[in-house]
Amino acid sequence: MMQIIEIVPNYSEGKDKVVMEEIIAPFKKYNGIKLLRLEMDASYNRSVVTVIGEVDSVIKGVIESAEIASKMIDLKLHKGEHPRMGALDVLPIIPIRGISEAECVELSYKIGAAIYEKTGIPVYFYAKSARRSQCENLPDIRKGEFEGLKEKMNDPFWKPDLGKIPHENAGAIAVGCRKPLIAFNIDTDSSSKKKVLRIARKVRFSGGGYRYIQAGAAKLSDRDICQVTMNLTDYTQTALYQAIEAVKMEAHRYGIKITNTEVVGLIPADCLLSSLKYYLHKDEEEDLKLSLNEIIELSIEHFKLRDFSIEKVIEYYLD
Amino acid sequence: MMQIIEIVPNYSEGKDKVVMEEIIAPFKKYNGIKLLRLEMDASYNRSVVTVIGEVDSVIKGVIESAEIASKMIDLKLHKGEHPRMGALDVLPIIPIRGISEAECVELSYKIGAAIYEKTGIPVYFYAKSARRSQCENLPDIRKGEFEGLKEKMNDPFWKPDLGKIPHENAGAIAVGCRKPLIAFNIDTDSSSKKKVLRIARKVRFSGGGYRYIQAGAAKLSDRDICQVTMNLTDYTQTALYQAIEAVKMEAHRYGIKITNTEVVGLIPADCLLSSLKYYLHKDEEEDLKLSLNEIIELSIEHFKLRDFSIEKVIEYYLD
Repeated sequence: MMQIIEIVPNYSEGKDKVVMEEIIAPFKKYNGIKLLRLEMDASYNRSVVTVIGEVDSVIKGVIESAEIASKMIDLKLHKGEHPRMGALDVLPIIPIRGISEAECVELSYKIGAAIYEKTGIPVYFYAKSARRSQCENLPDIRKGEFEGLKEKMNDPFWKPDLGKIPHENAGAIAVGCRKPLIAFNIDTDSSSKKKVLRIARKVRFSGGGYRYIQAGAAKLSDRDICQVTMNLTDYTQTALYQAIEAVKMEAHRYGIKITNTEVVGLIPADCLLSSLKYYLHKDEEEDLKLSLNEIIELSIEHFKLRDFSIEKVIEYYLD
Repeated sequence: MMQIIEIVPNYSEGKDKVVMEEIIAPFKKYNGIKLLRLEMDASYNRSVVTVIGEVDSVIKGVIESAEIASKMIDLKLHKGEHPRMGALDVLPIIPIRGISEAECVELSYKIGAAIYEKTGIPVYFYAKSARRSQCENLPDIRKGEFEGLKEKMNDPFWKPDLGKIPHENAGAIAVGCRKPLIAFNIDTDSSSKKKVLRIARKVRFSGGGYRYIQAGAAKLSDRDICQVTMNLTDYTQTALYQAIEAVKMEAHRYGIKITNTEVVGLIPADCLLSSLKYYLHKDEEEDLKLSLNEIIELSIEHFKLRDFSIEKVIEYYLD
């Protein structure tokens, strides 16, 4: 069986399409890689790229891409709303098929070492690849950003895993294996951001809620309603249906109803299927034989998904 | 304002009522202390005592009680189903009124030091009082039990906070400040322990559920139904209503209904009141002026509490 991974490199360039096209060119060059998304954000001045593919091809592609980014992006001149410390700022590596989490951790070490060798950019291993507890959480590593890197690296506590000093214009890179992150939003019928934020606080881990839910509140730009914006950081432990039902339950306090839900980016079919079982009154371990199209149809119905189609499911790009 | 704390000392004697009466005598001797409960468990061979009172009186009482226990209980002869490492095995200290958590941590250090001075029994500070991360979780400290203490204390990682070697017959004591623990069970209409355990797994932290819920499944001895047995380890973060609604939601998958709930031991009125607000559609921060009797009546109604009365509320013993 082929080993398939997803990578979601974040680059510190969100305005110049020509530059980004050069940076992502290696992902179009090899067989066995698919470039799924390029999301450029001008105010963040940052681009998020989603690539899936067979391990060896992805490795080749991402090392080349990191090298190009280190030549074309100069952090000394970079301004944007999103915190950043590197040209290729962070490289998450996600197991998709035929590869274990442990193998992905090993892979992250290999990729980090290759990038460091080619470019001299120092590397921190984060998330599941963290070799020290202080490196588990990306925002902690990135705190102080590019401008504070030199001083930070002088502190033995924050010495990079590879390298000793920041790259002159490309800073540093965080590389690590993590679970697929599900970006999932729930629309309410309320225009009160205050109340929707209270709902979000009660469902998220930091407020005593579910272990793998991060959540906040946001106003929808096109309508006068608010949504609970969420990341599910391990959907195999805290499921989509739990996020939906917990929000529904908390909203009930205020007489607020949920109207729709929304997946941002890509989602593994397994995340949909396992939560469908809840609504179909099946046990988690029961086998539920559904085609990809059936999964999508039932998900739209039971999760009230809007703007959803097969293009949002990772498996669509695999076969 | 008087500073009121609760202590819940656990002693390794659950069969001999005469011995336990001597051990708890100091809690009956001073003004300003109330002995609320003595629960002896023969198969555990362990007693759990609940005491509340004004700080100075409780300190005097518990130091005397620890001394008596160290003379009357011999761990070398002790057998029971519950893990244990000391005569007075663990001493949780809980802030109730007019005292902060930080002050209770200081108090635990003072009490631990006094017990060590009087008896020579080594002390581990655990929970909020832990001085090292390995001491936060009581079962980790207790692992190896009385019989393994000598070897354990030789390991620098497990050196006690006070003392160096186990007390010959009284072992060691864990002392620490913690939040009030709410022991709360939810009865279902199901006789399938397997299914009820699956429900418990989905609501508890270790299964991806709520941050401050520990849960399991148990068959009720008198009827052929199962309950979800829970500890809420911080009800100010994960509330009673969340435990109830999450169990209801997970049970829905199996067509199982919840019939009643049950508080084991004592509960602060505030824990009931804050969850009542959910069912009364009030915001958490809204003031809800209710007498203690009204709180109890509404709690029985909304939480479906059985076998509940004012004697289960800590505040009943305070004024």
